[in-house]
Amino acid sequence: MESRGISKAVIGRLPRYYRYLGELNEAGVERISSSDLSKKMHVTASQIRQDLNNFGGFGQQGYGYNVKYLRTEIGKILGLDQSHNMVIIGAGNLGQALANYASFARNGFILKGIFDVNPELKGKVIRDIPIRMMDELETVLQEENIDIAALTIPKTKAVEVSDILVRNGIKAIWNFAHTDLNLPKDVIVESVHLSDSLMKLSYNITRYKEEHGED
Amino acid sequence: MESRGISKAVIGRLPRYYRYLGELNEAGVERISSSDLSKKMHVTASQIRQDLNNFGGFGQQGYGYNVKYLRTEIGKILGLDQSHNMVIIGAGNLGQALANYASFARNGFILKGIFDVNPELKGKVIRDIPIRMMDELETVLQEENIDIAALTIPKTKAVEVSDILVRNGIKAIWNFAHTDLNLPKDVIVESVHLSDSLMKLSYNITRYKEEHGED
Repeated sequence: MESRGISKAVIGRLPRYYRYLGELNEAGVERISSSDLSKKMHVTASQIRQDLNNFGGFGQQGYGYNVKYLRTEIGKILGLDQSHNMVIIGAGNLGQALANYASFARNGFILKGIFDVNPELKGKVIRDIPIRMMDELETVLQEENIDIAALTIPKTKAVEVSDILVRNGIKAIWNFAHTDLNLPKDVIVESVHLSDSLMKLSYNITRYKEEHGED
Repeated sequence: MESRGISKAVIGRLPRYYRYLGELNEAGVERISSSDLSKKMHVTASQIRQDLNNFGGFGQQGYGYNVKYLRTEIGKILGLDQSHNMVIIGAGNLGQALANYASFARNGFILKGIFDVNPELKGKVIRDIPIRMMDELETVLQEENIDIAALTIPKTKAVEVSDILVRNGIKAIWNFAHTDLNLPKDVIVESVHLSDSLMKLSYNITRYKEEHGED
């Protein structure tokens, strides 16, 4: 598959295409023109064509896109046709929220363990997975072929835990800790900084109020 | 304040500056040169200077940045010196996780209500706020001067609930529902699509395995 040199911006848009095509599919839509898709997604039709041409196209002139086929193909590009074993470290509300997302399993993300330091949580079961204590983490990493660790722990613990993960060959960290992780280049890190997102909202509200003269 | 025409990319980086300056401040660092800050943040020093020059600078030649001052000023740009009343709609794990973030209150985001449709959650108290049923939402929106609503509900309910919010003058929606919201232009929407983020991770793992010949 020709995929090297694809820009981050394009990759960032692929999950959105996948999501919209999923909505169309659920709504029973079988085909869509690039112009209808572009109206729905609020991007230009030429952007969509350019993005998809990075992976060889998928559209036919005058026919548009076959929704189910395009969704499947984008899913393959995103690696969703493969399964990835995952652990969640931090079984607070956020960790439990992630553990409960049924759609993750549908997309090939297989939850193999949930870990916490709080002994009160020990043995509590979420979607058939019992919460374990941190002293069992290394064994699970080694025996269960874990690709992805979701970190939903305080930033003060994030460096120490990510060291354990790296030492045990983790491939990717989905980081919710409120800090950036500086890890070896071959470890993929995707951070979700919820506060950053809320601050952007705050910025936009503040500018809006200034421009509209509200206090 | 000169802030119009600031690019989204710059605005997107401001919370990250704020976060790093907070870490430096906690570590007792009083001054930092743009080159040291750039090494820490993995961006170029010239990028930092350019970004900050959008707001008038803040550095002195040969002195560097005063950490506490710069953090305070960026906080003002982000509107964190003002308070924003907020409600959370959806008191599942994710909604409860958001309600429990102490740092939000420190940054001026004041939680005024948590709402759900599940009667079993009625009256459960999170950080002094009792969970209320949805029939009380409009009253709270009207009486408590709510700026921001965090939506942590299934996508099937997101449109219906955001209609109620818009009708009652909400300024901004922090959207965690797994769908994009098409709202009037004067309503600010910041979406956090957790699945999109996990799919980017999956994409990068898949490419990495291809390039390194792993199955």
